[in-house]
Amino acid sequence: MKRAVVLVSGGLDSVTLAHLLTAEGWQLTALSFDYGQRHRRELEYAARAASRLGAPHHVVDLTSVTALLGGSALTDSRVDVPDGHYTDESMKATVVPNRNAIMLSVAVGAAVAAGAEAVACAMHAGDHPIYPDCRPEFVLAFESLSRLANDGFAVDGFRVVAPFLHDTKADIVGRGSELGVPFADTWSCYKGGPRHCGTCGTCVERREAFVLAEVADPTEYETVPAQ
Amino acid sequence: MKRAVVLVSGGLDSVTLAHLLTAEGWQLTALSFDYGQRHRRELEYAARAASRLGAPHHVVDLTSVTALLGGSALTDSRVDVPDGHYTDESMKATVVPNRNAIMLSVAVGAAVAAGAEAVACAMHAGDHPIYPDCRPEFVLAFESLSRLANDGFAVDGFRVVAPFLHDTKADIVGRGSELGVPFADTWSCYKGGPRHCGTCGTCVERREAFVLAEVADPTEYETVPAQ
Repeated sequence: MKRAVVLVSGGLDSVTLAHLLTAEGWQLTALSFDYGQRHRRELEYAARAASRLGAPHHVVDLTSVTALLGGSALTDSRVDVPDGHYTDESMKATVVPNRNAIMLSVAVGAAVAAGAEAVACAMHAGDHPIYPDCRPEFVLAFESLSRLANDGFAVDGFRVVAPFLHDTKADIVGRGSELGVPFADTWSCYKGGPRHCGTCGTCVERREAFVLAEVADPTEYETVPAQ
Repeated sequence: MKRAVVLVSGGLDSVTLAHLLTAEGWQLTALSFDYGQRHRRELEYAARAASRLGAPHHVVDLTSVTALLGGSALTDSRVDVPDGHYTDESMKATVVPNRNAIMLSVAVGAAVAAGAEAVACAMHAGDHPIYPDCRPEFVLAFESLSRLANDGFAVDGFRVVAPFLHDTKADIVGRGSELGVPFADTWSCYKGGPRHCGTCGTCVERREAFVLAEVADPTEYETVPAQ
């Protein structure tokens, strides 16, 4: 059985990814990261997804790194989480420098140690404008690097599996709907309050994706701005 | 003034690197990692080097990653640290999967957040046979990846500075001797006992480097095997 270490944040994309890979017959180990994000409650959603899919789940504590990466709205309480569209320039305030390289590097180490064939991650096309570490050229370069870094130790043809890399978030919602993903049991909101705020970039993107995919959105939002 | 985030383990190579970069006019921030290594006492030597050079020093706690990377003689007390020459096949037991990619990724995140021009690391030619993540092709690929991952956020021409990449450890001892590096205040031994064991791969390599460089070795070894 092919095995992968999958990054599961607890969001809609990564939870759908975990369901997709399970349906495709991969045996998964799920990794989540506590990097001091405001929306740390996403980790509970990651744990529930892993449990539902029978995958071991590990939360890696990177909080000692947080201060070094400081200044992002996601990790620094002095910086407001911007409202607006997910692809707006203002969303650059939510960039955590090198975050995906850090998380993927840990995942690769875990995968190589376990003799797994791949790491998997849920970057999608909507991430590309703002987050450079979600773009296809990053993912390809990361795969090459991982093979070099573990030459003689990783399995031959070690891969970074990123099936949503060229998909929109609406495509992911469509795919998740087919797979029966319990979307209410995923967390997107960057603000990390008791309910999805409905106005931060990732809430706006989430709402829009359900509309475009013509799938009922089970999310309870605090505020739904007029269209 | 140019600024770099430098990986300082507390060993001879990275401490010499920190002295070299300081002499070259770099303003440094030193990073060390607690990844559950047996020879965690190297961290005290890193702290002293940073303090001597007036560089801020951060120890990143990666111990929650240790179990995931398990099975290395450096982190798993059930696996013996092998004695012998540093380039022996048996030294593969000391590989921690993807270790340098993980540590460098954190360093890059910190450097980008701080607006620094570079990260710096002390891999050398003697590391290449056993550790794939110390080879020139890894370092080059990592530099490219870091630029992609932080496109628009890192300073232009962001670099991975690795001046010892093609040097032997004897070359480093020679360079350190010119720079006045207090070698007695560096730690190499993988076993992490009260004194350098003298017989593990890295102790053997250390002893040999001083002999080849014709520099007096101030290290107190537990055992010095007959030549």
